[in-house]
Amino acid sequence: MKEEKNFSEFFAMNGGNGPLSYAKNSSYQKAALDGSKAMVSEAIAYKFDVKKLSSSTPYRIADLGCSIGPNTFAAVKNIIEAVEIKYHSHGLESSVPEFQVFFNDHASNDFNTLFSSLPPDRQYFAVGVPGSFHGRLFPEASLHFVHSSYSLHWLSKLPEEVLDTNSPSWNKGKIHYSGAPNGALEAYQTQFRKDMMSFLNARAQELVPDGLMALLIALVPNGTTPPESFICLLYELLGSSLMDMASKGLVSEAKLHSFNLPIYYASPEELESLVEENGYFSIEKMVPMTNQMKHGITIGNSKLCVLHIRAGVEQLIKEHFGNEIIDELFNHYADKVAAESSFIFKQDHLDNFFEQFVLLKRKVSH
Amino acid sequence: MKEEKNFSEFFAMNGGNGPLSYAKNSSYQKAALDGSKAMVSEAIAYKFDVKKLSSSTPYRIADLGCSIGPNTFAAVKNIIEAVEIKYHSHGLESSVPEFQVFFNDHASNDFNTLFSSLPPDRQYFAVGVPGSFHGRLFPEASLHFVHSSYSLHWLSKLPEEVLDTNSPSWNKGKIHYSGAPNGALEAYQTQFRKDMMSFLNARAQELVPDGLMALLIALVPNGTTPPESFICLLYELLGSSLMDMASKGLVSEAKLHSFNLPIYYASPEELESLVEENGYFSIEKMVPMTNQMKHGITIGNSKLCVLHIRAGVEQLIKEHFGNEIIDELFNHYADKVAAESSFIFKQDHLDNFFEQFVLLKRKVSH
Repeated sequence: MKEEKNFSEFFAMNGGNGPLSYAKNSSYQKAALDGSKAMVSEAIAYKFDVKKLSSSTPYRIADLGCSIGPNTFAAVKNIIEAVEIKYHSHGLESSVPEFQVFFNDHASNDFNTLFSSLPPDRQYFAVGVPGSFHGRLFPEASLHFVHSSYSLHWLSKLPEEVLDTNSPSWNKGKIHYSGAPNGALEAYQTQFRKDMMSFLNARAQELVPDGLMALLIALVPNGTTPPESFICLLYELLGSSLMDMASKGLVSEAKLHSFNLPIYYASPEELESLVEENGYFSIEKMVPMTNQMKHGITIGNSKLCVLHIRAGVEQLIKEHFGNEIIDELFNHYADKVAAESSFIFKQDHLDNFFEQFVLLKRKVSH
Repeated sequence: MKEEKNFSEFFAMNGGNGPLSYAKNSSYQKAALDGSKAMVSEAIAYKFDVKKLSSSTPYRIADLGCSIGPNTFAAVKNIIEAVEIKYHSHGLESSVPEFQVFFNDHASNDFNTLFSSLPPDRQYFAVGVPGSFHGRLFPEASLHFVHSSYSLHWLSKLPEEVLDTNSPSWNKGKIHYSGAPNGALEAYQTQFRKDMMSFLNARAQELVPDGLMALLIALVPNGTTPPESFICLLYELLGSSLMDMASKGLVSEAKLHSFNLPIYYASPEELESLVEENGYFSIEKMVPMTNQMKHGITIGNSKLCVLHIRAGVEQLIKEHFGNEIIDELFNHYADKVAAESSFIFKQDHLDNFFEQFVLLKRKVSH
C-alpha cells in the first residue's frame, strides 16, 4: 500500500476552475464519455445480477483517474441510474442499495476543486482516493463497478531507456515515441504492458466476483503502430516547439533531452491480448466509439485543441522546465498548430486515433 | 445526502504547511491526543470482539474533523496498532484484516495538503470524505471505529437569534457567549443539543452493532457554564480586538454585529445526558484527560497560544471581514493577550477548560 513517490505524481491535470483548467478543457473527453453512457447502462442491465448484492451492502463504484470534474460526475450519475433502473425493472424498488462513490486520482490531483464541485443533489456518499491506480487502492473484494475514462494511456512512469544516451532506445531530440526510432516505441510498449498488468492485477483483487469494469481508452488502429494520428502529430509539434525554444536559448538543451511524455496509445489487439494473458477478467464487450466532437474540435478550432493538450500536460512540463516558459511555449505551439492544421487534421490522421469502450467482468474463479 | 451549503463550510482550519497553518499550530491538540492514545488502545483491547468481524471484511476507521494532519495520522496509527495487537493476542496473526481509513472534514478543508502528507509507509487504504459530520457521510453499518478529536465544539451553524437585534438572545457587542447575556448562552446550548443529536443519529446508522466511537472533546466543568476559562477569555479578547478595530474605522460596525463564533463548550453532565437521551450508544468510558501542554503553552508562551487560536478561526474571520484585516487584527490581539496573560492564564482559568475522553459503543438493538 506504500505509494511510490515518483514521476507519476506530476501527471495530474490542470486544477482549479480557470480558463486553462482541465474542468474547462475536457469537452473532447466528455463527448467520448457521452458516447459510452449507453454502453455502461446496457452493461449493468445485462451483466449485473441484483441477487448477488446482499441487502446490507452498499453498491461501491470507483472512477479511476477522475481528475476534477465535471466529466466524472456525469459518468457516476449514469452508472447509478442504470443500477436503479435494474432494481426497478425487477420490481425491487425498495431494495435499491445505498451508493458509495470513490473518486480516484494521483495525490497531486486538485481534490479541493473536485470536492467543492460535487453535485449538491448527489444521491451517493462521495469519497476521494489519492494514489496511483497502477497499485492497490481498495480493500479486497470491496468494489462492484470500476470506471476509468481517458486515463490508461498515461504510463505510471517513463521507460528509463528513452532518456539513456547509451541505450538503443534513446529517444534523441523527441519528446514522444511518435516519429521516433523503433527502440523508443518498444520501450514505451514494454512499460504499457507492465502498467496494464499491475492495473488488472490490482483491480482483480479489489472487485467482487462478477464485478464489472468499464474502460474508455484512447487507441490507435491495429497494425499501424506508430500511426500518423493527429494526437501523435500534436505531440510531435509540442516537441518541436520546445526545440525551437531551446535553439533560442529559452530552454536548456539538457532539460529537453531529459524529457519525454509518459503517454502511450495501444491498439485494440494489444489491449485484448494483455487482458487475456492476465486472465482475471472476461472481455464482455470491446467496441470503437464514435466521438461526435472529434471532427468539430480539431479541424474547426485548433485553439481549442491546444487548450485541451495544455490542460493535460502543463503540470508535467512545469515540473520539468519551470513555470516561466509555459505561456510562451503554448503561444508558440498554438501558432505552429494553426499553421499546420490542414495537415494534422486530415481525415486519415483523425481516423488513426479513436476511443474504445471495453467492458470487463471479474471471473468468479481464477 | 445533500450537503447543506451554509456557514459551516468555512470552519476549516488553516490549510497548507506554512508558519500559520493548522499543521504547524496544533501541538496543543496533539498533546491532548497523546494522552488519549492509551485509552483508545485499551478500548479496542477490551471492547472489540475479533470474532464479530467477518474474515472478508476490511476494518473501517473514520476520523471525523481530521483537518490536515499530522495529528490525524497519529490517531489512526494508534487505532490500527491496537487492532493488530488484539488479533495477535488471540493468536490470530494471519487473520489481521485490511484497514480502510476515511479522513473526514468539511469540503473546504485543505484535502490537497492532507493527501500529499499521508505517511508513505502507511499500512492502510486512505480515503478522504468531504462533508459535515452533522449529517450522514457513510453507508449504513459500514464503519467499525469512529474517532473524533477536538471537533465537536464546532457548531454546525451559528444560532440565528444571537445576531437578531429583536431577539432576547441578541449577543450585542460580543463574538461569543462568554461574558454575554444569558439568552445568548441558551441559544448556543440549544444549537449544540441539535448538533449532537444529528451527530449521534448519523453515527448510529453508520457504525456496525458494537462499533466503537472514541471522542476527545473540549469541555468546561459541570455547573459552571459559562465559566471563566482561559479559552473563553481568549475569545472575549479577540472580540474586543475586533471592537478596537471597529472604533478606529478599520472594521465596519455592521460586520462586527453580524459575527459570532460558532463554538460551544459543553459540560460533562450536559454531554452525558445528550448521549443517554439519544439512546443509540452505551457510555463505556468518560474521563477527563491530563493535557501536559496546557500549562506550558499558555502561561509560558502567549504567542504560541495566539497562533493556535489563529490557525483555528482565521478562515472564519477572513470569510466574514475580508483578508486585509487579518494581520493587523492578530498583531493587535497578540499584544492584548500578552498584556493580560497573567490574568487569563490563572490556575482556575486553566482548570475551567479541559479535555474529556468519551468512549461510546453502538448498542446492538435499539
